Amino acid sequence: MNRQQLVSEIKKKRSFLCVGLDTDIRKIPKFLLTMEDPIAEFNKRIIEATHEYCVAYKPNLAFYEAEGVDGMRSLEKTMKAIPSGLFTIADAKRGDIGNTSAMYARAFFEHYNFDSVTVAPYMGSDSVKPFLGFQDKWVIVLALTSNEGAFDFQFVESATGEKLYEKVIRKCNAWGDASQIMYVVGATKAESLKNIRALAPDNFLLVPGVGAQGGSLEDVAKFGMNKDCGLLVNASRSILYASSGEDFADAARSEAKKLRDEMDVLLQTNGL
Amino acid sequence: MNRQQLVSEIKKKRSFLCVGLDTDIRKIPKFLLTMEDPIAEFNKRIIEATHEYCVAYKPNLAFYEAEGVDGMRSLEKTMKAIPSGLFTIADAKRGDIGNTSAMYARAFFEHYNFDSVTVAPYMGSDSVKPFLGFQDKWVIVLALTSNEGAFDFQFVESATGEKLYEKVIRKCNAWGDASQIMYVVGATKAESLKNIRALAPDNFLLVPGVGAQGGSLEDVAKFGMNKDCGLLVNASRSILYASSGEDFADAARSEAKKLRDEMDVLLQTNGL
Repeated sequence: MNRQQLVSEIKKKRSFLCVGLDTDIRKIPKFLLTMEDPIAEFNKRIIEATHEYCVAYKPNLAFYEAEGVDGMRSLEKTMKAIPSGLFTIADAKRGDIGNTSAMYARAFFEHYNFDSVTVAPYMGSDSVKPFLGFQDKWVIVLALTSNEGAFDFQFVESATGEKLYEKVIRKCNAWGDASQIMYVVGATKAESLKNIRALAPDNFLLVPGVGAQGGSLEDVAKFGMNKDCGLLVNASRSILYASSGEDFADAARSEAKKLRDEMDVLLQTNGL
Repeated sequence: MNRQQLVSEIKKKRSFLCVGLDTDIRKIPKFLLTMEDPIAEFNKRIIEATHEYCVAYKPNLAFYEAEGVDGMRSLEKTMKAIPSGLFTIADAKRGDIGNTSAMYARAFFEHYNFDSVTVAPYMGSDSVKPFLGFQDKWVIVLALTSNEGAFDFQFVESATGEKLYEKVIRKCNAWGDASQIMYVVGATKAESLKNIRALAPDNFLLVPGVGAQGGSLEDVAKFGMNKDCGLLVNASRSILYASSGEDFADAARSEAKKLRDEMDVLLQTNGL
């Protein structure tokens, strides 16, 4: 999916919601466990219930890998259940030397047919560039993450006063443009969003941390929205596990609709 | 596998060689392609040919993920083909928030039964700590990698003069000890090994970059060996693809034996 298509979907659906598919077999409703593929079945029903209110889905690879071969089969089925027109993100946080990153690109862009993959920048240019050679595919680089551990290294400041996450953005902007590169910026670090928006005025930002992790949607829009919206805000647990009963899909739909309605207002406030 | 067992294997086999299983279906001998699972078959023959001369195997996850569900099945078969007494490394370079890292730990330590997994430190403590709660399992943290892109961020120097890779080692040493944590240090950065050995005197170092990437085994031993050896030196392409013909396993055996013989001398030189 290219940038124009993504922006168009956001405007049409009045939503910049990404639903994170962190599907944990230990947390899904018990009645699904007798089915052939409980994880794929759960995801299919979540997708049916929420796709009207979101523009993207983000399977978290760890949750599929934990189930081995069966989990990867669930992931394949999940990808097939996502309607066209929705942006897909492999939340994989890969990052390796060039020939290995090229294999990860093959895995996510070609085998599973994702639109994008999240990448950790620690290993530098070789870990990012191999993902850039694919038409209408995106790399989403970790800049400032939503977790407590973000303070361990991402704020390391060089003698010139540049923080590590700022340097990551500056370097990546030299490797590719805003039609190919997005950044991960945690909603729990909303006060830094203004700074990041100044460094990356055009890039889309993937923002986790709203909901279970405590970030505020209003602050994210206030500091992060640009003329094309430029935001994908992710919610996972607050939607997936809104109910643990047979009504889980309805409860997920209500949560997604609630976030969409808030997003609609925020888009209007910003003239979108 | 615990530290004592690993050190004992190194002394017994006179080797600190790790064979990297970066098995690329486009590079393995053509006659294997008609078999049911060419990747697993290739690995099985490589393992049979080399296990006498090495102490560890390191499947590179990207190469299995690129083949989707089939690739993960090849990985399961590969793990079963590795004899007991050999240390296994999931070269996955994962790293995520706590609940997700815990799922990766489940995937690699429990489902696939690896002894260790490589982890990228960008997201800080949450990305490392969830791997530490498993008996006789290890986390191998990226410190200073072998690739050109290592210079982009790993050498970022704070006002106090501490480089990012040095800070990674200092922080991780506070989270776990040398019975649980190893560091990745590229052989192409051998001049930094002396410095790293000073920061992490007891930890094992996993050293890629000898062979195809050009690092020197003598320099690695000179600057990196400690009283327990403390090194696992990885070779992948130079062993796997030593021959592209039907004699590939014999050629791999010769390459592995050659490295083992060099390592034996280096161990003796260091009184081991």
